[in-house]
Amino acid sequence: MTIVAEILKSKPDATVYAVAPGATVFEALRLMADKGIGALLVKEGEAIVGIVTERDYARKIALMGRTSVETLVRDVMTTSVLCVHSHQTSDECMRLMTGKRLRHLPVVDDGKLVGMISIGDLVKDIISEQKFIIEQLEHYITGSVR
Amino acid sequence: MTIVAEILKSKPDATVYAVAPGATVFEALRLMADKGIGALLVKEGEAIVGIVTERDYARKIALMGRTSVETLVRDVMTTSVLCVHSHQTSDECMRLMTGKRLRHLPVVDDGKLVGMISIGDLVKDIISEQKFIIEQLEHYITGSVR
Repeated sequence: MTIVAEILKSKPDATVYAVAPGATVFEALRLMADKGIGALLVKEGEAIVGIVTERDYARKIALMGRTSVETLVRDVMTTSVLCVHSHQTSDECMRLMTGKRLRHLPVVDDGKLVGMISIGDLVKDIISEQKFIIEQLEHYITGSVR
Repeated sequence: MTIVAEILKSKPDATVYAVAPGATVFEALRLMADKGIGALLVKEGEAIVGIVTERDYARKIALMGRTSVETLVRDVMTTSVLCVHSHQTSDECMRLMTGKRLRHLPVVDDGKLVGMISIGDLVKDIISEQKFIIEQLEHYITGSVR
């Protein structure tokens, strides 16, 4: 079973992108588009104060009569941020994401932010785990035949 | 290994929600929020002509100087819709989603739309498969000890 630290290591870009709570939603959207991602941490200095995602934009801007240029990240972000430790398993993360309907989990060790994993990262990990098992089985079968 | 038909059966709401290409993006957002989902099929009569997601809204409205009230779904939807058959495996779907960076796959059998699966549905399925394997192993161990 994979642990979060291994998933983080396998990511091509391990940077955790963040915005300030006083940034506009438009600025947050621009950064998400530039980096090809769907969520940003919201940080005040080193402190994590929230998370803002594409879903927040989809639910809390036009539908609430707001515009992304005039609305601040602090007014649409989710403030109760569920985090994981880097030694937790991919399984635990999948359960958290499914149970709480989340697509992103920041990774925090001893109060220090060390990464962020997405539901896509977990699915990629499952595929590579299965590939590994298949290779092991093939090796085992080939070994037995000889 | 689970097939798509089984995943569809386990979904509490199997309805595939859709909009017309001439609907506004605002109408699409309202329907997604009402149903608690992140993507809608775009249909012209019975024909699938596209898919529109939260990501299309996040990337193609404010960032392109548009508004959701004045923009039509046809102007932001993705027209090349990758579909799966209900007899394909969850594995194949995971590979497609990871490879193409998709979160939703419509399910079409013999030209007829029969459902839609999300990356969240696949993760839920993996969890329940693992639960089943653990139960089987526990049963096996208990059986051996007696």
